[in-house]
Amino acid sequence: MLRCDQCGKRAVFYQRHSGRHLCRKHFIYDFERRVRLAVKKYRMIESGDKIAIALSGGKDSVALTYALHRLYGERKDLEFVAITIDEGIEGYRPPTVEIAKKITSRLGIEHHVVSFKDNFGMTLDEMVKIGNKKPCTYCGVFRKYLLNKTARELGATKLATGHNLDDETQTIMLNFLQSDIERLARLVPQRVQKGLVLRIKPFREVYEKEVVLYCMLFDLPIDMNECPYSHFPVRAAVRDFLYEFENKYPGRKFSIMRSFEALIPCLRELYPQIDLNACERCGEPTPKNVCQACVLREELEKAKTR
Amino acid sequence: MLRCDQCGKRAVFYQRHSGRHLCRKHFIYDFERRVRLAVKKYRMIESGDKIAIALSGGKDSVALTYALHRLYGERKDLEFVAITIDEGIEGYRPPTVEIAKKITSRLGIEHHVVSFKDNFGMTLDEMVKIGNKKPCTYCGVFRKYLLNKTARELGATKLATGHNLDDETQTIMLNFLQSDIERLARLVPQRVQKGLVLRIKPFREVYEKEVVLYCMLFDLPIDMNECPYSHFPVRAAVRDFLYEFENKYPGRKFSIMRSFEALIPCLRELYPQIDLNACERCGEPTPKNVCQACVLREELEKAKTR
Repeated sequence: MLRCDQCGKRAVFYQRHSGRHLCRKHFIYDFERRVRLAVKKYRMIESGDKIAIALSGGKDSVALTYALHRLYGERKDLEFVAITIDEGIEGYRPPTVEIAKKITSRLGIEHHVVSFKDNFGMTLDEMVKIGNKKPCTYCGVFRKYLLNKTARELGATKLATGHNLDDETQTIMLNFLQSDIERLARLVPQRVQKGLVLRIKPFREVYEKEVVLYCMLFDLPIDMNECPYSHFPVRAAVRDFLYEFENKYPGRKFSIMRSFEALIPCLRELYPQIDLNACERCGEPTPKNVCQACVLREELEKAKTR
Repeated sequence: MLRCDQCGKRAVFYQRHSGRHLCRKHFIYDFERRVRLAVKKYRMIESGDKIAIALSGGKDSVALTYALHRLYGERKDLEFVAITIDEGIEGYRPPTVEIAKKITSRLGIEHHVVSFKDNFGMTLDEMVKIGNKKPCTYCGVFRKYLLNKTARELGATKLATGHNLDDETQTIMLNFLQSDIERLARLVPQRVQKGLVLRIKPFREVYEKEVVLYCMLFDLPIDMNECPYSHFPVRAAVRDFLYEFENKYPGRKFSIMRSFEALIPCLRELYPQIDLNACERCGEPTPKNVCQACVLREELEKAKTR
């Protein structure tokens, strides 16, 4: 039996980057400590905040909801609310919406389900049939649009997403490899943009597999299915490389994060925060005159009447 | 028969990043154009320069010597000299020293061969037997030391090395992945440091395989053997990933270079150029009090007398 390096009890996890075996208690302690440190480092949560959790019902956002509730749920100066976007993906989304309902009701967190159908008149499945764009284009634009709009309307001061260390380092590398420094700059934490609820990523310093284990240790309902539309070959290539690289040289994902952080001051200088306009159609924030959601919506409406 | 997209003659190369087939003439034209553009962009070569070429006798430095001679050899306001460091690696180095002699005598370029044995009293092979450091540690420190010293003593204003796009992007990624931002900053072109002859890399915008083809098209003597001490597993992992990534998404090595360039202003700010000290032992430039070459030399001398 492998024993915890902290207390000698039965180990449930071998943490490769630190070389330690950890029991249930010390794994959870370490996981939550790193979440708290990340939150503190970037002042993600401040007194008076109302935090909207982007809760898809996937493992990351379920773990995030649970962890935030455990770590900050007792704080009287904070409020939490969860938002689930139902894109309308048959077979895939309904079970996770159920999970989202279950976890929020169990924790007593106010929960809002907001659907593409109600807001844009059609589901993602219908958009994909009618339109000529890729599913992820519609989904990305409309999901972010509804998350921000709903969070703002609920009076949220922050929007928390479940992006973990693996997600973040993939995106950093991807943008670097594709020379998209503007998108790299968007990953800078605390990037205030008028009209956009400030996004926070409390899981940025924990590995994906640690998130999975955290779910398992608390017996959280998780659904490991992948979105049927998911198709990111370039990201997959980067993900696989980072997986192998991390496997050979544990801890390198932290190094990537540190590299990125070293560049933050200059990314801030290269891409200063700009004030967004109000979309001429819907009033939502956009760097252009008409927001991307309205552009896509109008395209889809035209295609529908053809 | 595949034909050149420029002139219809027989193609010798398919340039994946541009999607063009190129004949001998247009391949050479394109290759040399990109070398000239890189030289211009970073003002690598200026009127009055005396350029020392670091000529190991491997394919990159042979091609570099030839290309610089072809492109700038007629210029009356420039001088060229080649320096070959003979580390003393049995079986590997002697043939390339011969190649270096051959190409410089053919082009009429002054050539200096400088050996570890003459300067440090022993060959690299002997150092490896006596010392406890890795071969690449001795080689890297002593080779750079002798290149800089010799170039400066010859009155050179620039030291040209054969690093190509593959080499540079590997090093960029490696430093990023290992969070070594200081080393990343050292890759910034035109980084003047008192006492160090300014390094230039005219091949930074051409692929390794283009360098090989350039050698072949001019029938240059090349030796494709690899150094017997060469052992860089982390670099090899990065190299293999970039190879596959470039293979799937041609041109991405240029993207990496552009990403790096976008960060240059901030790398300059993060790591301003510092004036180096003169080594207390040998007078050569060093950021410390005693240079790394003297430290290693003293270690080896002690080990020898034991």
